[in-house]
Amino acid sequence: MNKKDKKAGNDAETGSGLPETDANLLDKKFSRRDMLRLTGASGLGLLLGGSGVGGILAARQASGPAVPAIAPVQAAAADTIPFYGIHQAGIITPAQNFLCFASFDLTTTKISDVRKLLEAWTTAAAALTAGTLIGSMNDNPNLPPTDTGEADGLTPSKCTLTFGAGPALFDGRFGLAGKRPVSFTDLPAFTGDSLEPQWCGGDLCVQACADDLQVAFHAIRNLARIARGTAVLRWTQEGFQRSGSADPSGGTPRNLLGFKDGTGNPDVTSDAEMRKIVWSGSTDGPAWMNGGTYLALRRVRFRIEVWDRSSLSDQEATFGRHRQSGAPIGARDEFAKLNLEAADASGRPVIPPDSHSALAHGDGSVQMLRRSYSYSSGMDLKTGQLDAGLVFISFQKDLMKQFVSIQQRLSRNDRLNEYMVHTGSAVFACFPGVREGGYIGEMLLG
Amino acid sequence: MNKKDKKAGNDAETGSGLPETDANLLDKKFSRRDMLRLTGASGLGLLLGGSGVGGILAARQASGPAVPAIAPVQAAAADTIPFYGIHQAGIITPAQNFLCFASFDLTTTKISDVRKLLEAWTTAAAALTAGTLIGSMNDNPNLPPTDTGEADGLTPSKCTLTFGAGPALFDGRFGLAGKRPVSFTDLPAFTGDSLEPQWCGGDLCVQACADDLQVAFHAIRNLARIARGTAVLRWTQEGFQRSGSADPSGGTPRNLLGFKDGTGNPDVTSDAEMRKIVWSGSTDGPAWMNGGTYLALRRVRFRIEVWDRSSLSDQEATFGRHRQSGAPIGARDEFAKLNLEAADASGRPVIPPDSHSALAHGDGSVQMLRRSYSYSSGMDLKTGQLDAGLVFISFQKDLMKQFVSIQQRLSRNDRLNEYMVHTGSAVFACFPGVREGGYIGEMLLG
Repeated sequence: MNKKDKKAGNDAETGSGLPETDANLLDKKFSRRDMLRLTGASGLGLLLGGSGVGGILAARQASGPAVPAIAPVQAAAADTIPFYGIHQAGIITPAQNFLCFASFDLTTTKISDVRKLLEAWTTAAAALTAGTLIGSMNDNPNLPPTDTGEADGLTPSKCTLTFGAGPALFDGRFGLAGKRPVSFTDLPAFTGDSLEPQWCGGDLCVQACADDLQVAFHAIRNLARIARGTAVLRWTQEGFQRSGSADPSGGTPRNLLGFKDGTGNPDVTSDAEMRKIVWSGSTDGPAWMNGGTYLALRRVRFRIEVWDRSSLSDQEATFGRHRQSGAPIGARDEFAKLNLEAADASGRPVIPPDSHSALAHGDGSVQMLRRSYSYSSGMDLKTGQLDAGLVFISFQKDLMKQFVSIQQRLSRNDRLNEYMVHTGSAVFACFPGVREGGYIGEMLLG
Repeated sequence: MNKKDKKAGNDAETGSGLPETDANLLDKKFSRRDMLRLTGASGLGLLLGGSGVGGILAARQASGPAVPAIAPVQAAAADTIPFYGIHQAGIITPAQNFLCFASFDLTTTKISDVRKLLEAWTTAAAALTAGTLIGSMNDNPNLPPTDTGEADGLTPSKCTLTFGAGPALFDGRFGLAGKRPVSFTDLPAFTGDSLEPQWCGGDLCVQACADDLQVAFHAIRNLARIARGTAVLRWTQEGFQRSGSADPSGGTPRNLLGFKDGTGNPDVTSDAEMRKIVWSGSTDGPAWMNGGTYLALRRVRFRIEVWDRSSLSDQEATFGRHRQSGAPIGARDEFAKLNLEAADASGRPVIPPDSHSALAHGDGSVQMLRRSYSYSSGMDLKTGQLDAGLVFISFQKDLMKQFVSIQQRLSRNDRLNEYMVHTGSAVFACFPGVREGGYIGEMLLG
C-alpha cells in the first residue's frame, strides 16, 4: 500500500452524494447487540464515533434503565467500513490483511433469479460487513441455521464485499447483450500466459476482504449458500499480507519475492485522481456503470525456488528497485521518482529499461490502482515446489487503455517474467455503490 | 483454546532447568536492530522487559552517544516466544492465529547430513522466532540473499517452530532403528479413513505458528531453502483461527462448523497435568525423548454443504453441545462438566452417547492436548464444493493410549463422521527443547 493510503479514511467512499449522513448510515447498520458487544459493556446509552467515520453516533437506547455513560468506540469505528455509498467499498479502501475472492457461475437462465440473488446478497452483505450474523445463533432448531456461525463473536474486522459482473453475464442468456460496456471483454492472450481454466472467468464475483481471515471466509461461504439454486462457485482464491505484526512505521507490504509492492500507487485520497484513474464517470460508458470500476485479476505464481537462487543484484535489477528500501535503483527514498533517464559513468541506464518498475511505469501517463495480495496454496504435487505468488488485482476505469496496455508491455519484456507465470485471469465490471433500500446492480437489472 | 489457557505465559516453557535466566536468554536473542525496531526509536540504552518474560533486559548500548531513556517493551515481550527451553515452544504455547505445517522427506542417506540440517535449522529457528532475518537485507549483491526478505520489518509475531521426526526416520537408512520408541509407528487404519498419500507421513516435520501468516510462511520457506540438498518438502498445510478481531472476552475459537473447539482441553498452566498428559518423562521411553512429546495430525475435510443443510438441533445433538454457548446440552456454561448420566423425562440421555463430545470424553480417564486450526484450500475441482475443514493437531505422551484409543472410539460411532472425512494423517516425535549452544534432536543424533 502506498504511504499516501494511510491517510485514506472512509470519507471518500461515503461523504458526498448521499442523502444519509455517515452517522445515520452507521446508526442504521449497527444493531443493539453489536453496540453492546463492541463497547464490551451492556446498558450504554450513548457512544462517540471516531473521527474516521465522521461524527457522533447516537446508538439506540438499550432496553432497561438508561446508564448515562459515554464510551469511546474508536476501535469499533475503525473496525467497520460502511457498506452503503456512492462507490462500493473494497476498491479505494486501504487493503485489509486478508482476501477471499470468489467467482460464481449462474445456473439459472432467468434474469429475475439474478435480480433476486443480488437483492439477497445486498441484504446479507450489509449485515456481514457490519459484523452481524445473517439471522441469529438460535434460530428455529428444526431448521438449518440461517448463519453458519463461525464468525459469531468476531468484530466487523473492516470487512468489505465488492461485487462485479463478468463479460459472460452479457452473452445471450439474460438479454443483457445490449448493456455490455463497449470494451468490456475477456482479456486478450498475453505473451507467456499459462492460464488454467479453473482459475479463469465467471459470471459474477465477490471480493471479500477483512482483517480477519475467518470473517472473510464466513462471508464468502454464506453468500455461496444464499446463491444455492441460482449460482455455484466457479473458483475461489485466498490471499494475505502481513497482518498483526506490521512494522510500527506502517510501510509498504512486501510480496513473497521480498520486495515492497504497491509503492507507485495513485493517491486514493484524491477524488480527482480516483475519477481520472478508477471510477467510471457519466460520459465513460453505460449509465449503470456510473460510479463503478473494472477489476482485473491475475493469479501469478512465482517461481520461488528459481528466484531464491538468483543474486541480490539480479533481483534488484529485475525490479529496478533496492530490496531493503524499496527505492528506485540509485535513490534512497522508497517514494523517490523513477528517474529512467539517469545513466552511469559508462552511459548505461541506472534503472534497467526492462526492469519491472521501468516497464510498468512507462512514460507515466497510464496508471491503475493495484490492490494485490500474496497467496500460498501449499505444494504443487507435480513439481514438489511451493505454489505461492500474487493475486494481482487492479481497478481502473478502462481495462484496455490501462491494464491491458501495461500488461502487454510487461508480458513481452519484463525481466520478472523469468520468475513468474500467470495461471489465472478474470475481469469484472464492479457495480457502482448501493444506497440503503436499493440493491447491488440495480441500475443494470432494475 | 480453553479458558484456562489464557493464563498460560511463557514461564512454563523456560522457567526451570535452564542455566540461563530468561533475561539472559532474551538478551542474547535480541539483536540491537531488533531492540531499536521494537521500541520504535533509536539510541535507547536500556529497556524494561514485561513481567511475562521475567525481568529486566539490558540491551546492548547503541552506537553513538548514549541516551539515558527507559522505554517499556511490553508489546515486544508479548510478541516473542522464547525458542530455547526444556521443552519446545508451540506445544503448550497458547495457539497463535496461523499455522504453516511442513512435512519433509530426507533425500540424503547419511546421518551426518541429517545432523548438519538440524544444526542449521536450530540456528535459523532461533533467529526466525526472534523476528530477525537469517543474514541481512543487504548481503553480498553477487550472491543470492541469505534471507528471502518478505518478513523484513515484521515483529516476531509470537512465532514458534516445533520440530519432530516421523516413524520413517527409524527405518534402515540412518541406523536409527534401535532408537525408535516402542509404540511409535504410523497410525493404524481407522474406520472411514479416506487418506490421500499427498497428505500423509514424512521423515521430519516443522510446525510453524505465528500471529502473522507472512511470518509463518517465511519461516517454512527459509527452512525448506536451508534443507536443499538434504531434504525436500513432502507436503504443507496452512491453517488459521479468528485473528485480529477476537471478541474482547477472548472466548474459545469456533471451527468452520460454527461450534467452539477446544473447550475441554487440559490446563497447560499445570505442570502436573502436562507431565501426565503431554511430556514424555524419564521413565516413559528412550532418553532422547525425555521432555518431548508426540504429535498426531489429521487433515479433516468437512462436508460443509451437507452440514449447512442439517438442522440446528441435529447439529447440537451431533456435537453434544449448544452452538451459541458451547455448553453441554442441558447446561448453560461452556465449561460445565459433561454430565453423561443426565436423562430427560422419558429416560433418554440428554447428551446423545454417540455425540462427538460424549465419545471424545469417554470415561474422562484419557486426555490429550488439542491444538487444531481451521483450513480453507479453495474449491474441490471434482465436486465444486469448498475444500475446508480442520487441521487437527494433538500432543500426547503416548500415541496409542491417548490419540489412537480415542480416535478408534470416534471413528466407529461419532455422529460427526457423517459430516467429515479424514484425508491426511501423520505422527511425529517432537524432540525435547534445546539449550543455547545445542541443536534440535541432539539427544537422538549426537
